[in-house]
This record gives sequence, structure tokens and C-alpha cells, in this order.
Amino acid sequence: MIGMGKFDISTPSGFPEFSPAAEQLRQQWVATIQSVFTKYGFISLTTPLVEREENLLGKGGNAKEMYALKRVHDDPNDKSHSGNALRFDHTVPLALYVARHFNDLTFPFKRSVIGPVFRGERAQKGRFRQFDQCDIDIIGNGKLNVSNDALVVAVIVEIFQKLEIGEFVVGVNNRKILTGMAKDLGIDPKAFLDLWDDREKISEEAFQSRLESFQAQSGKVIAALEKFKSISDEDFVKNWVSGKTQACYNAIIKFGESFGEESLRGARELVLVLEILDKRLKVDRRHFAPNLFLARGLDYYTGTVYETMMIRHPEFGSICSGGRYDDLAEIFTRKKLPGVGISIGLTRLFAQCLSAGIITPTKASPTQALLIAADEEAMPKLLEIGADLRASGIVAENYLEDKKLSKQFDYADKLGIPYCVVMGENELRDGVVQVKDMKNGKQKTVSSEQLSDYLQSCLD
Amino acid sequence: MIGMGKFDISTPSGFPEFSPAAEQLRQQWVATIQSVFTKYGFISLTTPLVEREENLLGKGGNAKEMYALKRVHDDPNDKSHSGNALRFDHTVPLALYVARHFNDLTFPFKRSVIGPVFRGERAQKGRFRQFDQCDIDIIGNGKLNVSNDALVVAVIVEIFQKLEIGEFVVGVNNRKILTGMAKDLGIDPKAFLDLWDDREKISEEAFQSRLESFQAQSGKVIAALEKFKSISDEDFVKNWVSGKTQACYNAIIKFGESFGEESLRGARELVLVLEILDKRLKVDRRHFAPNLFLARGLDYYTGTVYETMMIRHPEFGSICSGGRYDDLAEIFTRKKLPGVGISIGLTRLFAQCLSAGIITPTKASPTQALLIAADEEAMPKLLEIGADLRASGIVAENYLEDKKLSKQFDYADKLGIPYCVVMGENELRDGVVQVKDMKNGKQKTVSSEQLSDYLQSCLD
Repeated sequence: MIGMGKFDISTPSGFPEFSPAAEQLRQQWVATIQSVFTKYGFISLTTPLVEREENLLGKGGNAKEMYALKRVHDDPNDKSHSGNALRFDHTVPLALYVARHFNDLTFPFKRSVIGPVFRGERAQKGRFRQFDQCDIDIIGNGKLNVSNDALVVAVIVEIFQKLEIGEFVVGVNNRKILTGMAKDLGIDPKAFLDLWDDREKISEEAFQSRLESFQAQSGKVIAALEKFKSISDEDFVKNWVSGKTQACYNAIIKFGESFGEESLRGARELVLVLEILDKRLKVDRRHFAPNLFLARGLDYYTGTVYETMMIRHPEFGSICSGGRYDDLAEIFTRKKLPGVGISIGLTRLFAQCLSAGIITPTKASPTQALLIAADEEAMPKLLEIGADLRASGIVAENYLEDKKLSKQFDYADKLGIPYCVVMGENELRDGVVQVKDMKNGKQKTVSSEQLSDYLQSCLD
Repeated sequence: MIGMGKFDISTPSGFPEFSPAAEQLRQQWVATIQSVFTKYGFISLTTPLVEREENLLGKGGNAKEMYALKRVHDDPNDKSHSGNALRFDHTVPLALYVARHFNDLTFPFKRSVIGPVFRGERAQKGRFRQFDQCDIDIIGNGKLNVSNDALVVAVIVEIFQKLEIGEFVVGVNNRKILTGMAKDLGIDPKAFLDLWDDREKISEEAFQSRLESFQAQSGKVIAALEKFKSISDEDFVKNWVSGKTQACYNAIIKFGESFGEESLRGARELVLVLEILDKRLKVDRRHFAPNLFLARGLDYYTGTVYETMMIRHPEFGSICSGGRYDDLAEIFTRKKLPGVGISIGLTRLFAQCLSAGIITPTKASPTQALLIAADEEAMPKLLEIGADLRASGIVAENYLEDKKLSKQFDYADKLGIPYCVVMGENELRDGVVQVKDMKNGKQKTVSSEQLSDYLQSCLD
């Protein structure tokens, strides 16, 4: 317990906050993600953090993890405060938004959101109760072309390239391949997908025994597993990486074909998505790949599914997942609203990258130039210079406290401010300033008139 | 009640959301405010939305308006979820942050924040239960120079100029002038400030009778009110606007002097702040002015106080207020942390400006160019062009659905997309596209290679 007297001033468990420098970096991430979302024409929306409890519960909310709102001293005569809860994801609020505003929206509706969601999970390392998620979704009115499923991968790849967090790959699959296969084998598709999801978590034996428990014709199952090699063995991977994509596409189609119509349809959709990404959007093939083992647990995906792994950090799990769904808002509106979307768990990924040393915060302040008065008489002129620098687009800040010069340089140093501009009575008389480069300690005399241009050239 | 079947899908009362076009404009406001905060070197911080209830209550939280968190299905064995509540402002979270991170912070600590706060007030027009506030504060360690009080005014003025919401003025006063005056008149300072706050809401008679109820020497009170004319009459205002600032400063100092030492100190601080704003930071005097009638209700202000009025919309009330306080976090830490800060009630101001017609949303999408395939064969090439345009910095979006051309133009029209790029089989063969300016309907044939440059020149 920290703090004095009766107050425990630590953050509530599961509600993270960062140091100023880490927070500046986190906000750069947010700006980068937002800029890529915008570049692809997504409409950024911020909906309320609070929705009606019944709507959240109706759309898959887990009552044990959902936070309801209750006034600390409630007034029993004012019922308008009860029955509301904090959102646990961005999908239900989107479904509600689209249902509410259906007639005013233009479809396909491409929306992005970056903001906090809340889950009352057990507190444990890496699990937060408030965390930022970054979502994009494309919602069709009645229909939505499968080429949209390629677009969201291009967005993800561009984001992670720009965040510079190291090697990553977006795995892409199509659920129809697996559900068609299950049906063909006479296995319940949901149980089959669940097993598929667990494949990497359980032993080969456990996998085998659960497969056998389906009591499908075991000869058929073994033959099916054999066929999986054709779309996952070394040759397949080598072909993909080296650009022999047609060989991969052929293998995927052949695989789908062998399990009937639904699987084939899924295989064709998958190939189309991969082709658009590779040939049209020219996305680097090192950053996306077909992965027919991918199932993704959530019930509502019906076609394309994605997950994103960091190649050197598989322990992070999927850092961005999503997929295609048939109907966004079936319980809120009779309109059929198919969609495709992905979600980045920003807070978690950022905290993971921080603690793995993949990113290092360096700058606690946006300031580019700190203006320091070596003598009191220089302060008025330096205030004017500060205003002039800001007007010319430089982030300039005057140090206003009565402290020793060394303390003022310390301030710049600790905040990562790259340049100090110093003026004493001599400089004031001569119409110059001293510009100190905080990285190498070098100092240069610059005339006040040329200061803005000089700093700009240093900062470029 | 809207929605189908058993679900009421409307937003909970007091939790506003906006149309896509209004939301884009609101986010432009956020970006503008953020950019000005940054320009002055403020460190942008996002702290948790949830804090310990006892800390919020200890620092002025109103239990009747505060939302506590409670899981919908709570587990009595897991106490870690109880005792937390949603923040009701940004000041208490800042006090907690500074107390928690004191040793890692560099002072003066200049932080900005833009984000939601929650108040369980009675629902009524213009009152929200979730709303965004934009705050800046400068926190000193032990001391903080009064020139900081000028800086925050410069920030406010620059923001409202950039938001282009019409004429406004930041009124500046210094509480010490009023508290010194009350003491000199033998009136309880708090009661005096309260009356002062109510001055414009109550009748002249009510004001007079409350003044008399203080049982101060009534002759002295009347003489004091008489003196107020010298710092608020027509001449004073005329002098201020026309740049005869020295006459105003003299009047303020003389006024302060006549009520003893505390008032004089306040008057000197006020003049210093005004002088820096006018002479050093060159802030337009139409946008700030001394207003010695200003008291600001909150107990904790001890020096400079601000409020901002829109000249043509006094019914909006103060759109940005704040002031100087002696100690940010006295209940959380023994460190003395004087500060100065202001807060813009963003959601409220935005909603007011929308409904008063001061701002008009026009663009529901960030897209600058919509790519339309007039024939299916053109789609692959258009996807490539879309990727190229984005790579060159243009927000370009492919229309991917199988719809009539007219529907595709409708999409651009409704979202306010300024240009459509159309390619059919002829254009595909000839290596050109048709660029349609959606504002005037004019169409131009442009070669695919020159498209990016052409669009860029149109957009500039």
C-alpha cells in the first residue's frame, strides 16, 4: 500500500497506467493505427462506453465479467441510472449503433474505433480489466463482397509494419473449409472446430483420441489428416514464400474439393483473398499466409478467419484476430448485416512489447526546444521568441521557474527535449541565443531572427 | 422505444452518440485541441477511467453522482472488483497520478488529457452522464511561477480561434483581490465569493439585500462597489480594447491597493498575467480581458481564475474555466503541489454548437477518392491503383460491391467523398481513368500514371 494516512493511492487492480514516456509512445501507436485506418477510408466512431445491460447480455456478454453501473449513493426514486453496464467489446456497440442509425448510414459501412473496453476478469499478469481495443469492421446491407476480407489484412499488415515490432504473420483461413470437412466426415462442425482450436495446446495423443471419440469413419479421418500435409508441409510453405503461389492455390482448391461443395467454396474464397493481397494490394507475402489449421473459437465467424502471430514471440498469442460473420445485429434489427472485421488488443500488446524490450520509451515530452533565461532580464524576450517558434510550427516551451541553470538543463534532459535555447544579458544585448544540442552537448550562437530556421533544420 | 422484440436499443439516457458526419467533426475538434496542447509542450496522459471510490470521494466526489462498478453477476469470493468507481473529472486522477509517480516525474509537470468523465446527474437537456473533458494543468513542486497562469490563457485562445466557433473572450481575475476585499470589509470570504458568483443570476435588489445581510459596515460596502466602476465601466473597457492597457493596469492596481495587502498582491499578479499575454505572447486582446467580477465557485482556487464566454451565445455559459490552486494532492501526498489549469467541456460545447448551427458536419468519411469499376474486368487494375494512391498519401477506397454505377456515385455523394475515379473496359484498354469532381459533376480523362499527381493537385 502506497500513499499517506488512510488512502491507498495505488491504481485499482487490472486498471493499468503508464509512465509519461511510455504513455507518449503508446499514444504514437494510437496515432499510427488511426492514420492507417483513416487511409483506407474507415469512418472513426466513438460510441458511449455505457450501454443497456440487457443489450450487452443479449449479444454474448458474460454477466460474471461485465461491470454494471450503480451510483455510490443511489436514489431509489430515480430509476434512470440502473440497468446500464460498461461495454466489454466494440462489436456489440457497433451492432447497436448500426441498428439505431440504419436509415442514416451508407453501406458498406466501414467503421474504425480505438478505445477502452472493460472485463471483470480475475486479476492476473497480462490480463487487464480496462484495455484499449482497436477495431475495424466493414458491414454490408444484405451482402458483402469477399474481396473486403482481403482489405482488412492489408490494413493489419500496414499497421504492424509501421509499429516496427518485428516479424509477424497474419494467418488466413476460411471456416467453410473446416465445417465442410466436418460435415463430410460426419462430425459435428462445432465440436470439430473446438478440437481444431485446441490442436496446438494438446498432445498428439490427446488430439488423436478426441478425433476418434467423434466416431466418424476412422479411415476417412486418417485420410483427411493425410491430405492436410498437402496444404501445410515444407513444400507448401516454400512455394508460398518463394512466390510459387499458384502451386499453393492449386493445393488449397484440391484440398477443398476433396471434402465437398462447402469446403470447395471456402477454398475458393480463401484463394481469392490471398490473390488480391498478393497480386493487387501487393502486400508482402512474408506478412500473411494461408493457415488451414486456423479455426478461431468464436461461434459467429462463418468464412474468412484471421490471427496474427509474432514470429519471435509466439508466447504473445494472437496479437490481432478477426473474421467474417453472417449477421452483425440479428437480435437488434431484421436487416441482414454481414460483415468482416479485426481487432487489435492494443494495451496488452503494448505492455507485452514494453516488458519484452521490443520497444523502449525515450521521450517523456513533445517539446522540441526548451527556452532558458540565464538572466531574469532575458525572460520577456524569450517569452516572445517562444511564441514565435510555436507560430512557426516548433514545439517550444519556456522554462518559467526560478531555478539554477543546471536544474533547467536537467529538466530538458529528463524529458528527452533535444534542444535548449539559452539567453542571458549578453545574448539579449547582441540579439542572439545559444542553442545547445542535448545529445552531444554542443553549443552554437544563432541570431534570434534565424533561430526558427536553424532549429527546423536541426529537427528535420 | 426503438428496436425489435424485447430489446430497447436506444442509448441509455445521458450517454450521447453522434452521426458519422458529426462524429468526424467532433474528432477534428479533438485533433485540433490535442495539437495545440502538444505545441505548448504539454505531456498527453491517459489514466484509467476507474479509481478507488474512497480516493474519489476523499477529493470532492459527490456520492450521489458517482458511478460505482459492480459485476452483473458478482462473485462474493472475489473482493478485488468492489470499491471502484468511474472518475468524475480529470483533476483527482491527476492528483493520484502525481502522488503515485512523484519520484519519476519532472517538475513543473505539464499534462494534458482529453477523455470521458462520468456524472450520474439527473438527465436533462444539455446534461450528459458521460462527456469528454479536455484539461491542461501545470503542477509545480513546492512553487510555481505566476507567469504559467498566462500560458494557459494563450492555449485556450489558440484553441477557440482554431475551432472557429465565433467571438469569445477569456475573462481573467485573481481571487486574492476579492478575498482581500472581503477581509477588508469584514465579510466571510467564502460567503462573499458565493454572492459574487451569483451576481449575474440574481436581481439588483437581491444582491443588495444579501450584501447587507453580511452586516459589514454598509458605508464601506457601498464605497467598495463604487470603486468597482473604475475597473469595469465604459472607459475601462474602451481603454482595454484600444490598447491603452497601462491605464487599465493602473486602475486594477489602485483598486487592489484600496483593500489592503492581499488584494494588492492579487492585483499585481493579475496585471502580470495580462501583460505577458498582451506584450509577450501577443494574444489578441479581443480574446481575453480582466474581469474583476469573476469569482468561480470552486473552493480550491486561490489566485488567478478564468472563464470563457461566447459573445453571441452567453446562454452557453462558460465554455472553458479554471484557475490557480495551492495544492493539487494534499490528501494523497505530503508534497506541496501548487498548480494552474483549465478545462474545456468538449461534449457539451460541441452539442451546443451543433444545435445552434454554429458548426455543420459535411463529411461522413475521410475518403478523398472512391474507385469505381464500370466493368468487372477493371476491378483488379483498380485495386492496384487504390493501393498506389494510398501509398502516395491519398485516402483512396475501392467500391467492391456489385451495384449499379448510380448507386456507387450515391455512396460517394452521401459520404461527402469529393472525387470518384471510374474505370471501364475502354479505360482499362487505354490506360486511363475518368475522374469525376462530385461537387460540380465535371469529368476528366486522366492517364493512370498521372492520377496520383492529378488528384493531389485537386485536393490541395
